[in-house]
Formats: sequence, C-alpha cells, structure tokens
Amino acid sequence: MPVRQRKNPGSQSALRLSNQQRILSNLVSSGPTTQADIARSTGLSTATVSNIVKVLVDRGLVTTSPTTSSGRRAQLVSLSSTDNAVAVGIDFGRRHVRIIIATLDYRVIAEKEIEIPLGYTAAEALDIAANLLTSTLGQAGVQRTAVLGIGVGVPGPIDRRTGSVVKGAILPEWVGFTVGMAEEIFELPVYLENDANLGVLAEATWGPHGGTPTVVFVKVGTGIGAGLILDGKPYSGNIGLTGEIGHTPIHEHGLLCRCGNRGCLETVASTTIMIELISRTLDRPVRTREIVRMALDGDDLAIRVVEDAGLAVGRSIAAIANLVNPHTIIIGGPLTDLGEMLLRPVRLGLKKYAVPMIVETTDVVMSSLGERAEALGGASLVLQQSGITSTVS
Amino acid sequence: MPVRQRKNPGSQSALRLSNQQRILSNLVSSGPTTQADIARSTGLSTATVSNIVKVLVDRGLVTTSPTTSSGRRAQLVSLSSTDNAVAVGIDFGRRHVRIIIATLDYRVIAEKEIEIPLGYTAAEALDIAANLLTSTLGQAGVQRTAVLGIGVGVPGPIDRRTGSVVKGAILPEWVGFTVGMAEEIFELPVYLENDANLGVLAEATWGPHGGTPTVVFVKVGTGIGAGLILDGKPYSGNIGLTGEIGHTPIHEHGLLCRCGNRGCLETVASTTIMIELISRTLDRPVRTREIVRMALDGDDLAIRVVEDAGLAVGRSIAAIANLVNPHTIIIGGPLTDLGEMLLRPVRLGLKKYAVPMIVETTDVVMSSLGERAEALGGASLVLQQSGITSTVS
Repeated sequence: MPVRQRKNPGSQSALRLSNQQRILSNLVSSGPTTQADIARSTGLSTATVSNIVKVLVDRGLVTTSPTTSSGRRAQLVSLSSTDNAVAVGIDFGRRHVRIIIATLDYRVIAEKEIEIPLGYTAAEALDIAANLLTSTLGQAGVQRTAVLGIGVGVPGPIDRRTGSVVKGAILPEWVGFTVGMAEEIFELPVYLENDANLGVLAEATWGPHGGTPTVVFVKVGTGIGAGLILDGKPYSGNIGLTGEIGHTPIHEHGLLCRCGNRGCLETVASTTIMIELISRTLDRPVRTREIVRMALDGDDLAIRVVEDAGLAVGRSIAAIANLVNPHTIIIGGPLTDLGEMLLRPVRLGLKKYAVPMIVETTDVVMSSLGERAEALGGASLVLQQSGITSTVS
Repeated sequence: MPVRQRKNPGSQSALRLSNQQRILSNLVSSGPTTQADIARSTGLSTATVSNIVKVLVDRGLVTTSPTTSSGRRAQLVSLSSTDNAVAVGIDFGRRHVRIIIATLDYRVIAEKEIEIPLGYTAAEALDIAANLLTSTLGQAGVQRTAVLGIGVGVPGPIDRRTGSVVKGAILPEWVGFTVGMAEEIFELPVYLENDANLGVLAEATWGPHGGTPTVVFVKVGTGIGAGLILDGKPYSGNIGLTGEIGHTPIHEHGLLCRCGNRGCLETVASTTIMIELISRTLDRPVRTREIVRMALDGDDLAIRVVEDAGLAVGRSIAAIANLVNPHTIIIGGPLTDLGEMLLRPVRLGLKKYAVPMIVETTDVVMSSLGERAEALGGASLVLQQSGITSTVS
C-alpha cells in the first residue's frame, strides 16, 4: 500500500481528499449511482456526499442528472467521459524529473524528462516538477481539474507509520519529506512511493508481467533496491522498508556505505561506484550513459566494471530467489540498455549462489520499460488507488 | 498452501479425499446443512455428496437426521461432536519421529517422540510412524476413524508442481517422497509440508505470534531453513521452494555444501557443522544436546561455536529483514534452550548487516515451542485445511 498520510492526517483537507477518492472509486466500480446510494455504500453522510459531489462537478470529474429512486426525486452521479480524466506519474531521480500523463485505460498521452542539478532540495525539485506538470498538461490540452492524482516516486525508503522518506534515501535532502508537502505544492491528491516499488507495479501494469503472481523488480542505479509483488499483491512488509537489498553485505571489508554498514551491494554494484571507479581511472568525470556506451563499444574497463557489478547483483538476487522463490526477476534502471552484457553475469551470480532447482525455475529478464518504469508506475498507482485496475489488485 | 497432490492426482481416491475435505470444511463453517445445500455450496452433484456423507457417517465424523426443506423431506448433515475428531501432526527429523494428537479446539491430547536410526529410508520411517500412530491413538483412547488427517513435516524442500520432496533435503533418502506414499501407509488424508513452514504455522497458531501479519521462523538444526507468513498468510512462492536461507553464501571459499554450492550458511551455522567441529576437537562423537549443555555450562569451545553460528545466522536474517521487513523473526530448532547465548550473536549479526531502521523495528525472539513446533504445525495444517482456523487464514 502506498502512502497517502498527511502531516496532520486528521485535517479537513486530508479527510476531504480521502473521501473524494472513495466516491470516485465507487463510481468507477459501480457506474452511475444516486447520491443516496453513494452515501450508503461509502458510509459517508448524505451532506458530505453532496458537498464532495459539488467539488467533483466543479473539477469536471463527475456530472449529475435528476432521476427517481423508490418513487422519490434523486440526483444521479456519473463519471464524466473518462476520456477526460488522467493520472500523473512523477519520478524523481538523482538528477532528473520525469513526468508521465496517462488516461484511465492506461495510455500515455504525454511524457517529459528534464535534468535537474545534483544535490537539489526536495522543495526545489517539487517547484521544478510543478512547473513541468503545468506546461505538460497545457501542451497535452488536459485541464488541471481532470487530474485524478499524482503518483510520486522517490529513490528512498518510506516509513509507512509516518508517511515520510527516512534515512537511507539516495537523496539525503529528501529525508523527512511527506505527502503533505507535495500536496501543498501540487494542490492535487498525491501518493508517495519508493521508486523500486513503482517499478514492479509498472512491470505488472504496463509491462509484460501482469499475469505473474510473484515478481521481483531490482532497480540498479545510483542505489539498488527491489520492489516485490508476492502472491499477486504489492508487498510492503511491516513498516514499508522492503527490498532494501542494496544494503546486503557482499564484501566483509569493503567500503563504508551511506547506510552506516560496510561492503553493502551498493558499494560494489551501483552506478555511483561504477562512475567513481571509471572517473578515477580516466581522470575525468563520466556519467552512467557514457559507461553504458563504452561497454557496448567493447571498452575493457567498462565491461569489467559491468561484469563485476552484474555478478554481485546476481549473488544478491540469489539470496532473494532462495528466500521468496519468485517466478520472475526483472532488472531495471539506467543500465537496461546493456542487455545480455549485464544479464549474463547476473545469471551467473544467481547460478553460483542459489539452490539449483530455484535457478532452473526463475526467469531473469531485463525491464522492457527502461527508465520510464518508475513514472509509469506512479500513474498506475493513482489509477489503482482510484479503483481502475489493470492486472494487479 | 501445503501439498495434497497424489502420485496420480486425478485418481478416484484423490478426488474422494479432496471432496471429503470440502464437505467437512463446509460443515465446520456453516453448521448443520442439508445434503442439497452442501451440493449447492460445494458445486458437487447430489449423488457425490450423498456417497461421501455415507463414508463420513461410517467414519463417525458426521451424523444425519431427517428434516424438511422448502416443504420436502431432506437429510440434515451435522458434524459429530467435535470432541471426537482430532488432527495428527508428525515430524520427521534426522534421527527422530515426533507425533502430536490435537483436538479441533487446538488442545494437545497426546504426544510422543522416539529416536530412529541415522540414515533410515522414508519407507522405514513411515512404518515406524504408522506403528507410533496406532499405539498413541490407542493409549489416548481415540478411534482411528476420528482422525481428520495427518500433517507431515519433512526437513526438505517440496516442489508443489509434483508434490514431492526434491534434492536439497536433509535426508537424501527422502528425495522423491510423495503424499501418495504416506497415504498408502496411513490410510488417512495426508498433508505434506516442509518443517520450517510448519514451524511458522505453529508459532501463529500455538505460539504467541498469531496476531502478527509478517513473521519469519528460522529453524537452525541439521539444516537451516525459514518459514514465512507474509501479510497474514503462509507464503509458498512460485514452486514452493521458499526460505532456503541455509544456502545463502556466507563464506566465499568455505566448505562445499550438499546443495552443490560453496560456503553456504549451513556449512557455517548448522548443528551438523557444530557437531563436526566439536567432535573433531574432542576426538569423540558429540550430539547437539551435549553441545547445548556444554555451552550453558560455560565451555569455551562450545560457546565459540555457538557464537560464530549465531553471528552467521544473524547476517543471514539481516538479508531477510532487508528484503521482506518482517515484524518478528523467531529462531527455532534444537538450539532454543541456549536462549540469550544464541540470541545475542544473532541480534549482533542483524545489527551489523541490516538497515538501521529495520534493525530497530524487527523483533528477534526464541521460539517458545522448541522442538515441538513442527509436529504442532502439522496438526495446525490439518485443522486449517479442514476450515478450523485459529489465527492464520
């Protein structure tokens, strides 16, 4: 479950947003319904329903028409043509913001990515994203009132008890960030989720893995994290800190890790360490895309770094496979263009370190969504929270 | 889900057993029901229901009485006094068989454990268990016809596709063993399950962890394996090979492991390696119970072996905690009497290798069920498959 909690979860505006979602979900699943029936099935008072319906009419999301029910006059509430409503996914990376606008039938109608400076604060990034949202909606000809909500992905763990980004985030500037802060900027309902969790949701809704009950999405990027769908449902554990495989020890006396431990997978196989190793040797700064290009062009140095990282990732997914026995493990993130060059050492690591019968029955594949996965997952999150499911419940 | 598949899953007897269970579950959840209503709610034909009810009457599990339904004469089917029905759990270890007989309200009315020779075959063990079952039922004054079923635990992975024990089992003699073989010997419905999976089920039904949605039970014994309850449900992954944490690499150039890999957790922290290390040094064979006693008595050698094993187990549960973020991790198996002496290094390992916020929010405790856990879990399995739930659904 994604986080929708506010700084002050009992506040009027939080309550109103939550009630709006309930009414919309009800209309999506039940079709046109009288206000009285909405009240009955949501448990809200008729006065509350009436007030919220007025707001939704103003936002163009629903229409009302007179009807009769049990011989009395009543107001029938219908969703506006769903061609109008959209869901927004926003993905914040270490140096980019990506935005995707999707219709209720899972079609992308607009998509943009911009670079942002390293070390930005959450407030700066939100301002940039809010401007990007306004311009993208404008260019796509979509009214702001048609936005059901925004699914925001951040590369960091989110504590579900407080609804905030906690220590361990790739972007230390984001620690303490909450949904409430984003809603103040966007003035729209926001759902906050870890990027790898959005990745696995995207694979199950936009990618080819919708029918697979047990899927693990491993994002190998600036950090390394996994998103889990277990028994057909997104899995979030006790307090939401799942898939923290970047902090599984690989090298007893390795580098110190930002998590406070030592020799973690991230110190061996993240793009951060790849960049550091190659930049140091070439004596000039390189970026991930350049490393990918170098490796594909046959550069020995880049290939060595990729293969070592792949083997370490494979060892780590062996531990995942031994524990939760998934059907499919998907490798995502900025290295997906490497294809077999990365998959080969990953599979070798799995083979070396997992139980043979598990190796034989686990598919390891590259994400087909590439760097779009997280933003797509953000849009999926909004649609699913509004009751508009594709495959994953 | 436990395995109830037969050598020939489409066979008449397999089908009959499965239909019996459906009818019993229906009666447990709905109370006395007419045969026509049973047919409607199970989807079985009235002729099938009638035949099975006759069998169940013969076994003393249900009674029938005439009634009327919609003005017609009908047969009302009721469960016999549930004081009579029992579930049996049988746990096979490397050198023991334990049997537990439990009532439908989760009371143990008989319990026995006997030693069996090392290296026994599955057929020999089943014969011993069948005799033990007969004598235990006799001494407890329980009719064989009152046994709902037997939950059998084996220390090995079970492939759910074939319903058989696969390579990797602690007891290589058991590879290929199926439910069908056990049912031929016991002439009762049998449910087959991995021992660690029964352990976690026991903790959630007989132990204090019933209300906890996400629990991991780690059995440290001859082998090391984990049973998982995730989001309130027993978790079995893609083909049932979950919790194989004994085969996660701990020591890159360690000993060769029976799984075919190298330096696995089992080669460092199982009772097998503890016995080997201490026997070699003392130059005489020791057994697990003696090692526990030595350590509790302050023997440096035993304490060192226990602490090293605990640290390795802790490192492995750190990887579990990072991935599935459980509320509680329970250490079970023959070392539970060590208490804090084992828990201390386990917690230290968790602290060294897991994300700090996960360490702070994960309880690590010793099983309160000790070596009874697996047999108790076997009885729980039968009760739950019959629809008689305690806490876990």
